[in-house]
Amino acid sequence: MKNYHIAVVGATGAVGSEFMRVLEQRGFPVASLRPLGSSRSAGKSIRFGAESLTIEELNEHSFDKIDIAFFSAGSQVARSFVPVARQAGAVAIDNSPAFRMDPDVPLVIPEINADDVRDHRGLIANPNCTAAVALMAIYPLHRAFGVRRVIAASYQAVSGSGARAIAELKQQIEAATNNRQATPEVYPHPIAFNVLPHVGSFLPTGYTSEEEKLQNEGRKIMHLPDFKASVTCVRVPVYRAHSVAVSAEFDRPVSVEQACEVLAKAPGLELIDEPHNNRYPMPLDVAGKDNCAVGRVRRDCAFENGLSFWVSGDQLLKGAALNAVQIAELL
Amino acid sequence: MKNYHIAVVGATGAVGSEFMRVLEQRGFPVASLRPLGSSRSAGKSIRFGAESLTIEELNEHSFDKIDIAFFSAGSQVARSFVPVARQAGAVAIDNSPAFRMDPDVPLVIPEINADDVRDHRGLIANPNCTAAVALMAIYPLHRAFGVRRVIAASYQAVSGSGARAIAELKQQIEAATNNRQATPEVYPHPIAFNVLPHVGSFLPTGYTSEEEKLQNEGRKIMHLPDFKASVTCVRVPVYRAHSVAVSAEFDRPVSVEQACEVLAKAPGLELIDEPHNNRYPMPLDVAGKDNCAVGRVRRDCAFENGLSFWVSGDQLLKGAALNAVQIAELL
Repeated sequence: MKNYHIAVVGATGAVGSEFMRVLEQRGFPVASLRPLGSSRSAGKSIRFGAESLTIEELNEHSFDKIDIAFFSAGSQVARSFVPVARQAGAVAIDNSPAFRMDPDVPLVIPEINADDVRDHRGLIANPNCTAAVALMAIYPLHRAFGVRRVIAASYQAVSGSGARAIAELKQQIEAATNNRQATPEVYPHPIAFNVLPHVGSFLPTGYTSEEEKLQNEGRKIMHLPDFKASVTCVRVPVYRAHSVAVSAEFDRPVSVEQACEVLAKAPGLELIDEPHNNRYPMPLDVAGKDNCAVGRVRRDCAFENGLSFWVSGDQLLKGAALNAVQIAELL
Repeated sequence: MKNYHIAVVGATGAVGSEFMRVLEQRGFPVASLRPLGSSRSAGKSIRFGAESLTIEELNEHSFDKIDIAFFSAGSQVARSFVPVARQAGAVAIDNSPAFRMDPDVPLVIPEINADDVRDHRGLIANPNCTAAVALMAIYPLHRAFGVRRVIAASYQAVSGSGARAIAELKQQIEAATNNRQATPEVYPHPIAFNVLPHVGSFLPTGYTSEEEKLQNEGRKIMHLPDFKASVTCVRVPVYRAHSVAVSAEFDRPVSVEQACEVLAKAPGLELIDEPHNNRYPMPLDVAGKDNCAVGRVRRDCAFENGLSFWVSGDQLLKGAALNAVQIAELL
């Protein structure tokens, strides 16, 4: 079994630190691990298993002798350094939106379109976190009933905005507890005891960039060019794990029993649907777990062949680090 | 101008205390105000303007000489004492779900179906808070374009569950800040840093009682028997004001410009829709305000003649006390 030389770009971020944990937990065959960051974080040390590694500043030689490079930095860093990694012979797995819709770049959720990895040319894109969590439940239902369109609303945790947003919620909560005001910096408005219908940047359509991802990425991942998804993305004062309320219309007749059977068997997904025992997916319960959870499955009363359901998933894991490592495992 | 003898049932609750404030603020012609409560709250004093009133225990004589009785207690209290109030010659305005769907009882949002008040037989029902907030935006759009169906997801504040739920969120936040655990009592799970896809009780349809109200009450209030609404109701760690993400399909072609024109003119509603300036409705901003707010108006990408939008409203005011006092003003 070959052992791989790994680089992690953005190793100190909310997702980056999950990469280290996931690689270790899954026993990924790591020959060496090179944590990379900005000049600001270079020199800091970071833990990988029993080892303490020193973060190196990202530069033109960062990917020499690297087999797999995980990118969990922004689009700008990805655009600048993914070509460097490819040039050096590494396979880049990028968590940013920079290349996701590029027709030459596979966009992969291993439970859905693992085969697409084969066509990679040194770069595979990792999907948006909210889209990934929602698709984990939408796709198995699509296979059973043929999904036509989806209306969804999200409940997104602050960790989706990175480590600074986690600190911002904490500060605002502490300030409120002491009757003080904390000035928002990461978000344009307070997030403590509030919800913000604003995730991503606003587009001419009136949707945000985040809201259009389920449709765009869903079409590519499910190989379903006519898939429609109207989404409202909302930031909520939750630290970790995103949830999505979904109403979906299908081509074929649906039943709750069949749907639950399909969902219970779907890989990477847990069916938690005993409402009378107060059992349904919640962010507090799925945080830190590999599997996404689906529940509240019911016939949708506004769609002809429709189902409503509720999905929660740890967006740092299935929505990011875990999915990327699963992609690497396919290689 | 006649002055009215008023009773408020459930005067110490989260909604009850708003009744006192709203009656005073709107200069409602009050001749006398009688706050009523359970044996537990009887004897306590409560403020109404400059006066301090003593809460009386609800009994068979509570409504003698009362003109208007506001009920903001549960369904059980309403079923027992609304008949007593009517018998005594008072007009009851009930905030509980007990009589809302009774064909002999008008269910009224004054901005929508004020005329229905005329047919009252001593009892008028106040709508569900989430339904009321959503309908404030749906109805004017219905008048313009003819609404066919709606898919919605709610973000509901803890004050919708009463004063004890407000205390519970506060305790859980304080406990978390001090690394302690607080045992949930009002909700089946922690609400701090979590969201619960569980508002109301679960029905055989898989929806909750709360989730079916927008369709049922919307049909009655808008006089639209075929109106369909599929809703997911979710409790979020917000103290006050509910929000709803709505996708709506209409009979006639829609445009964002026309929709915004209609919404800007709608009574009781404020259009806050400048996303590029980070201006959209939020619970923190509408809390304590009479008007509901709508924004994020866009062409829905999954419905043919569809609009997506976002409504926030103070559910203790428009969703409860304010709406009830507005009904009384119609009398």
